Amino acid sequence: MSKASNEPVLLRRDEGHVAVLTLNRPHAMNALSGELIDALQAEFDRLARDKEIRCVVIEATGRAFSTGHDLKEVTSTRDYAFHHDLLTRCSAMMMSIKRLPQPVIAKVHALATAAGCQLVAACDLAVASTDATFATSGINNGLFCGTPSVAVGRNVGSKRALDMLFTGQPIDAATALRDGLVSRLAPPDKLDEETMAFAQHIASQPPQQIASGKAMFHTHMAMDLEQAYAYATDFMAGAIQREDAQAGIDAFAGKKPKPDWKGR
Amino acid sequence: MSKASNEPVLLRRDEGHVAVLTLNRPHAMNALSGELIDALQAEFDRLARDKEIRCVVIEATGRAFSTGHDLKEVTSTRDYAFHHDLLTRCSAMMMSIKRLPQPVIAKVHALATAAGCQLVAACDLAVASTDATFATSGINNGLFCGTPSVAVGRNVGSKRALDMLFTGQPIDAATALRDGLVSRLAPPDKLDEETMAFAQHIASQPPQQIASGKAMFHTHMAMDLEQAYAYATDFMAGAIQREDAQAGIDAFAGKKPKPDWKGR
Amino acid sequence: MSKASNEPVLLRRDEGHVAVLTLNRPHAMNALSGELIDALQAEFDRLARDKEIRCVVIEATGRAFSTGHDLKEVTSTRDYAFHHDLLTRCSAMMMSIKRLPQPVIAKVHALATAAGCQLVAACDLAVASTDATFATSGINNGLFCGTPSVAVGRNVGSKRALDMLFTGQPIDAATALRDGLVSRLAPPDKLDEETMAFAQHIASQPPQQIASGKAMFHTHMAMDLEQAYAYATDFMAGAIQREDAQAGIDAFAGKKPKPDWKGR
Repeated sequence: MSKASNEPVLLRRDEGHVAVLTLNRPHAMNALSGELIDALQAEFDRLARDKEIRCVVIEATGRAFSTGHDLKEVTSTRDYAFHHDLLTRCSAMMMSIKRLPQPVIAKVHALATAAGCQLVAACDLAVASTDATFATSGINNGLFCGTPSVAVGRNVGSKRALDMLFTGQPIDAATALRDGLVSRLAPPDKLDEETMAFAQHIASQPPQQIASGKAMFHTHMAMDLEQAYAYATDFMAGAIQREDAQAGIDAFAGKKPKPDWKGR
Repeated sequence: MSKASNEPVLLRRDEGHVAVLTLNRPHAMNALSGELIDALQAEFDRLARDKEIRCVVIEATGRAFSTGHDLKEVTSTRDYAFHHDLLTRCSAMMMSIKRLPQPVIAKVHALATAAGCQLVAACDLAVASTDATFATSGINNGLFCGTPSVAVGRNVGSKRALDMLFTGQPIDAATALRDGLVSRLAPPDKLDEETMAFAQHIASQPPQQIASGKAMFHTHMAMDLEQAYAYATDFMAGAIQREDAQAGIDAFAGKKPKPDWKGR
Repeated sequence: MSKASNEPVLLRRDEGHVAVLTLNRPHAMNALSGELIDALQAEFDRLARDKEIRCVVIEATGRAFSTGHDLKEVTSTRDYAFHHDLLTRCSAMMMSIKRLPQPVIAKVHALATAAGCQLVAACDLAVASTDATFATSGINNGLFCGTPSVAVGRNVGSKRALDMLFTGQPIDAATALRDGLVSRLAPPDKLDEETMAFAQHIASQPPQQIASGKAMFHTHMAMDLEQAYAYATDFMAGAIQREDAQAGIDAFAGKKPKPDWKGR
């Protein structure tokens, strides 16, 4: 079970058009060290140019999904510039998830706390084991979960987020589903199978529509209603003209078999 | 059961101060053809000037509430200008619901997909049968539900909306209630009765207060908190002076019987 | 049981680092008279400078939590300036809750309506008895709940808020929890104990982190995502340097016992 110290902190395997990234610091509860943050950023940069991959899953090894920043690293110095740089890289990595052309699914098998909980919140989608728990627990160690509160607050709303942030106490998977931190639950022994079926289903959808639709959605959600409708109307009138849509609509109308969408 | 092709695509009947609009293209699953979009817009334009109507219900005939745009019409041409015009009229119609002085209730007895799901999301209120289901299923036909995502995203939040948008899979009525896409459920055999009781109750409230309150609510929700309070404070200080409020408060204080509010 | 008319409309008792404010107009259902609004504002102004208090609980005596504005006072005049001034003071008091350095918990044992429901919504946190009910019922008396709709709409979303605002009908505690108006429930006979344990737990957290974290959270929630991350990153890089965080992280790392955080 033990991992050699020279093992990579992040693994990647591709299953068809799905890339699975595995946080691989089980003995450190998959803490987001600077090295792991940079490895995630490097994979996201590669994935942004990868026309073969249509959906990304982030999973983790060991007893926890991730317990957030690596406190050994954080306490190694009191240099403001070091901490500011580490947090800036972490925030940029979290924002890269929204900017990726592919949907990104967090697969949460166990505890996700602090920046680990933020990572779940920052993903487009999340599937949790019914055994998983979530907390913004930094306050228990004297440090308010500032950057995690950006993503968690936007998932669950102010009152629920402040309850988590002030108390540091965990919520269970059913509460995370009710509050919108995750969009699906699975029994522990079905989590792998159901998450992969979910990812493969998304990967079977027309990838250009998914990629442009994801970007459009995150853009219009920051607009007022009238702007958002004007923007989405332009998007959709253009999207209808594209080959993937024409092929799909022809299939729906019974003129042709359902297309096997490829490329991006 | 069959409908003659010259039957109107939209019906209207008034029950007291409640107008009931019925989507009436049952053989086309009440798809929102350009004709039906224009018929809805024309009714909304009439209702905006109708001082007798205090609440509007949108219902549908047949097996579905509405399955969104009419794909026969959409696939009839590859002309960008045609599609842009159709979607622009549809978005304007959806925004008209928010601008109507009367509260608008979607009564959803069955499947609502794509722009049909958007219509539910765009209404001020929605009552669903416990049998109803909801999906933004355009992606299954090769077309990301762009304009539906504007309304649905603002009802249910990002993670739940993206799950629906990327997968095209339906959610059931209980999930729609939990997520805020509808605000009430009713058993299938009580949907008519409970929705009409809901509408008539709203129609019995003071209509000027309802109309000005609805406009104020949608306006302040786009403001920051301090602006919103300043705006709502001005509104409410003015609203107190009006006769309907004075009559209601006098009744509450036991000085007079409860008024039967009329006119707008 | 009867209260002398010269008894204060607002009581305060401190339990350790927790201040408990008690609405004390039981015979008026704790209606928010101008006197009570001013008394709350005066306490909030004092608390903002009180370094000993780390958490605030707002509770109420008698059969209701609060039924909102005092209709006797509201109907005492038809002077617009009087009403505008009363509502302006009320809105300022509600906004003071967000600006206080301490988390503010509403402890709701029973009915909260109109501006009483707004007070629950305006608090950072809320614990409700499973017996409590909530309504924006002004419309039943001819007056749309304008200022309450600002806070309630931001807690529960548009569709649920409009249902409450147009109908005036109550929701139960379980619905308030589902919709985000409160973040916790307790059985009636455990409400006192569980709310105080909740408040004392928050009071045991490092107060500077809580105070600066609360302010940061409310600020970034009004920003777009990229601004919010930049702001939260600056905040957190600074927060790590502070003594409270250093002591907490050292304790977590096993170097020292967990600190007993004091002062602010």
